[in-house]
Amino acid sequence: MDAKRCRVEFEPSGIRAECAAGDLLAEVARCAGVGLAGSCGGVGVCGQCRVRIAAGVVSPPGDTECERLGAGQLAQGYRLACLARVLGDLTVDVPPESRLAAHRLQIEGIEVPVHLDPAVVERLVELPPPSLADLRSDQARLADHLAREHGLPVAAADLAVLRELSPLLRQHGWRARVAVRGSEIVAVHPPDRTGLGLAVDVGTTKVAAYLVDLESGPTLAGDGIMNPQIAWGEDVMSRIACAMRGQGKALQAALIDGLNGLIAGLCPEPDRIVEAVMVGNTAMHHLALGLPVRQLGLAPYVPAVSGALDVKARDLGLRIAPGASVHLLPNVAGFVGADHVAMVLASGIDDTERTVIGLDIGTNTEVVLAHRGRLTSCSTASGPAFEGAHIRHGMRALSGAIERVRLVDGQVEVGTVDGAPPVGLCGSGVLDAVGELCRAGLVARRGRLRPGPAVRVADGGPEFLLVSGAASAHGRDIALSQQDIGQIQLAKGAILAGMELLLERAGLAAADLDEVVIGGAFGTRLRVSSAVAIGLLPPLPEERFRQVGNAAGAGARLALVSRVQRARAEEVARRIQYVELLTQPDFGSRFARQMYFPVC
Amino acid sequence: MDAKRCRVEFEPSGIRAECAAGDLLAEVARCAGVGLAGSCGGVGVCGQCRVRIAAGVVSPPGDTECERLGAGQLAQGYRLACLARVLGDLTVDVPPESRLAAHRLQIEGIEVPVHLDPAVVERLVELPPPSLADLRSDQARLADHLAREHGLPVAAADLAVLRELSPLLRQHGWRARVAVRGSEIVAVHPPDRTGLGLAVDVGTTKVAAYLVDLESGPTLAGDGIMNPQIAWGEDVMSRIACAMRGQGKALQAALIDGLNGLIAGLCPEPDRIVEAVMVGNTAMHHLALGLPVRQLGLAPYVPAVSGALDVKARDLGLRIAPGASVHLLPNVAGFVGADHVAMVLASGIDDTERTVIGLDIGTNTEVVLAHRGRLTSCSTASGPAFEGAHIRHGMRALSGAIERVRLVDGQVEVGTVDGAPPVGLCGSGVLDAVGELCRAGLVARRGRLRPGPAVRVADGGPEFLLVSGAASAHGRDIALSQQDIGQIQLAKGAILAGMELLLERAGLAAADLDEVVIGGAFGTRLRVSSAVAIGLLPPLPEERFRQVGNAAGAGARLALVSRVQRARAEEVARRIQYVELLTQPDFGSRFARQMYFPVC
Repeated sequence: MDAKRCRVEFEPSGIRAECAAGDLLAEVARCAGVGLAGSCGGVGVCGQCRVRIAAGVVSPPGDTECERLGAGQLAQGYRLACLARVLGDLTVDVPPESRLAAHRLQIEGIEVPVHLDPAVVERLVELPPPSLADLRSDQARLADHLAREHGLPVAAADLAVLRELSPLLRQHGWRARVAVRGSEIVAVHPPDRTGLGLAVDVGTTKVAAYLVDLESGPTLAGDGIMNPQIAWGEDVMSRIACAMRGQGKALQAALIDGLNGLIAGLCPEPDRIVEAVMVGNTAMHHLALGLPVRQLGLAPYVPAVSGALDVKARDLGLRIAPGASVHLLPNVAGFVGADHVAMVLASGIDDTERTVIGLDIGTNTEVVLAHRGRLTSCSTASGPAFEGAHIRHGMRALSGAIERVRLVDGQVEVGTVDGAPPVGLCGSGVLDAVGELCRAGLVARRGRLRPGPAVRVADGGPEFLLVSGAASAHGRDIALSQQDIGQIQLAKGAILAGMELLLERAGLAAADLDEVVIGGAFGTRLRVSSAVAIGLLPPLPEERFRQVGNAAGAGARLALVSRVQRARAEEVARRIQYVELLTQPDFGSRFARQMYFPVC
Repeated sequence: MDAKRCRVEFEPSGIRAECAAGDLLAEVARCAGVGLAGSCGGVGVCGQCRVRIAAGVVSPPGDTECERLGAGQLAQGYRLACLARVLGDLTVDVPPESRLAAHRLQIEGIEVPVHLDPAVVERLVELPPPSLADLRSDQARLADHLAREHGLPVAAADLAVLRELSPLLRQHGWRARVAVRGSEIVAVHPPDRTGLGLAVDVGTTKVAAYLVDLESGPTLAGDGIMNPQIAWGEDVMSRIACAMRGQGKALQAALIDGLNGLIAGLCPEPDRIVEAVMVGNTAMHHLALGLPVRQLGLAPYVPAVSGALDVKARDLGLRIAPGASVHLLPNVAGFVGADHVAMVLASGIDDTERTVIGLDIGTNTEVVLAHRGRLTSCSTASGPAFEGAHIRHGMRALSGAIERVRLVDGQVEVGTVDGAPPVGLCGSGVLDAVGELCRAGLVARRGRLRPGPAVRVADGGPEFLLVSGAASAHGRDIALSQQDIGQIQLAKGAILAGMELLLERAGLAAADLDEVVIGGAFGTRLRVSSAVAIGLLPPLPEERFRQVGNAAGAGARLALVSRVQRARAEEVARRIQYVELLTQPDFGSRFARQMYFPVC
């Protein structure tokens, strides 16, 4: 007998879906295009896919849901979409903190002036037509012309070019615009259509893309989306686990689909794009290319590929010019990827005699130290707390996320994304909150909340009340719990242990740093004074800190317009001495020590 | 309302198919894998898809079918599958002459000894496994090893290799067999699986493929199929016309499907094939690659591509190792293709001081003249008469085809393929029949049949009766008509005009030829004495003729195992001076003169 069909309506989007009785609610949402948060890969641990069943029947909650949601939320109809199964027609409320949409995307970044020297050059050609006295093939005719008239000898033409060349030449009176990469013709266009370049930064959470004029250099447009792979888990390790369970192709396809949509939005004629550069951490790099990641998830965590790569866009399914290449900057190690190399490139950390530390804070935080021309890097598992995950009232930097917290005369003041009514806390808000607690002496050195203004004791232990239910968007209190502070301590401990280790190996103290470069989305939003207050950043004069935005994207743009910069990236990857923290015998004690706050 | 579903059974194969009422019978046969002959692209002209409706109802015959089949055949239930539409359940008899199966395929050819120097070399590697002290990526580990231990520095690895490498190394204890092409790793296999090579000759009518051991050189297996594009027309121009009407992709897909089946039959593990070489005439080359052919079908008939090409097998849809390349030998001109170059290569015509003419007789006949180290080639439209087409009782060299004809004491003796009861005439049978008529003085110089033994006057004019209905497989007379003789005259005139022109330009006469090399399927089957009798070949001593079989396939095999031979092929293509017959003012009169027979 066939399973019963059920209809599900999601609010407030109004999206309707049909499914079989017994289907997982999260699956139904995903298929229907309802963007549901989630970072644990669908095992009921992260709690981010919490929805309210407004009408209809789902499967009874199991132990995991009961434990995660508690009797109170279950009584109000809250359930985890990743565990609840549809048993009949439903109406489902998706609360703001569980939605993926409207995320604030960090795509701006520094623009570094650079000498233009792109891998692909274009020429406008005008060929003599064939005749009975001149029977050269179209390809030979074009190759001869490029060599003679433009000093560009070519050895080959991409098959996609050969498939388009003959009709195109005849349609446009033997005139065409030809894109040449090294010794290969990679694209051919009508005479009036200039080629474009594309730079892509594939972050674990966000994907940013930039359209670049290859002839003159400026960024013409930029846009970003959430990484669609988030549906398989928020952090790198969850996605590696999914790929190890055979979902690698689905992960790749989701990313490429998302990228194709992003590209189509940036450029109405995507086949004008004749060259692309892509950066990402090693896992994103591998998942984008469809490379195996099992060895990234198991010690000793080695990449399948470290060198720079050129692959045909069509082999990835990217819908740009079919003969175009995608250049991938080199990876350094399993958890220090091409995005780190790009960040070093864009911020110039490789090109200084000063002593500089660079940080890209995320679920994994990469740290690089430049000292006397030597580069040392490490990667620490700082966890997703600064992305708002694993925080009880945490959320991403969506509209309504608390991003600023101040304690003024015992009163809490908060600022939210878009100034919207508060929904939850994003990473910079969490940092600010802990920073204020430190400044006010309301947390002890080991992290314990002390009694004081806005600190109260709730069922789950002490907590710092930020917004009361009366003032929040959903009518529930928003607070920072003792456990949340613990998550921040874990992140801080990991990052500082890595920084300290690099400094110590170079015989340096934090005070010796001439500059601290902070990249990435959270790194740009964070208030430096709060980071100093909790001890995440060293207490240096303000002018020594430089927040550089999406430096990985900026590095990708540099490599897009300059072969010299690509060579420089390969040199950076070679020069970086990777320090594997797992082999450091004292890393554990260092980590534990750095979890303490700088208060008495 | 949906169309009625009908069941169709084809005899004698017993193949069953389901289709919608109204479907064309030829389409139903094609989809069901019933090989039906046909050379006109399905417009009812060639009559080769004639079948008998044994039971059931089809659409009433239109004018074309009435004219083509006549009332008698229609009354017996004969119809043209390309015009008849299925109206209900059917049983369909496919007579032998309408079947594509069991064609005698010319795949043998000379084996030329050659120094092995393949484009792809293999190495068995054993790598040190990664450790916390050696965190190189799998790709870097392999590249380092190849450079250090095998003196094979590589710059890149194909994406398909990178997708397989990491799990493969771990499954086989860090041992693997690695195929390297130039500076790229193109395949990686378990240690015990050696790589193989594939040579393919794509003829207009037949496709031959050979599996070759790249390390030691011998051909391990060979097989052939009919070119599946025959369903779109028997000659090159019909297929170009189909492609110009938007069916280029379908033509390419049909060929690639056929090739994939052929390869799977030759090699149970097709992904062991790490390199392929493909040759064909320029149109087959273009259709195989999905290149545009419109410019091949219109004056001045220039190819899209002439130079040698390397394309990834996956870009063609060929199911061999996904990173393998297909090397295509260079074309010379629109109607002198890579198969001609391969034939020159295999027969050594480029490497002689003697005066040699080489012929590859087909629908287009290519002629090459070597004299004092110079190579001159031309192509003439000789038509498909020597393939048995455009001949009233003509057929391909299937079982039952008359391939030998002798007139002994006024009695006709015939020999058939497989010794089966006679069905029709294939090319060598037609040639023999005309040869016997010439020897017996039964045709006049201009081709008119004279009264004599076995020559009778039927409804359509005089004809040479070969087999009476009592002795034939189908109960109908088999005869050579006056019109058939005209077709042979057209073919002969075209070929001889081309030969004569090349000889004249070099100041030579036929008697000056040290050797005449005859390649191709018909060229191998033909009786030289008959060809001399009708004046197709010059009256030279027998030892000056050399029938070389599928020399194009042999040339492809040479290029497969030797980069020196590939370079030689490019040199041959450059050296060949192409003579365009269309620009020769006296070509028409030359052609007309050469149609005469050498009889008085």
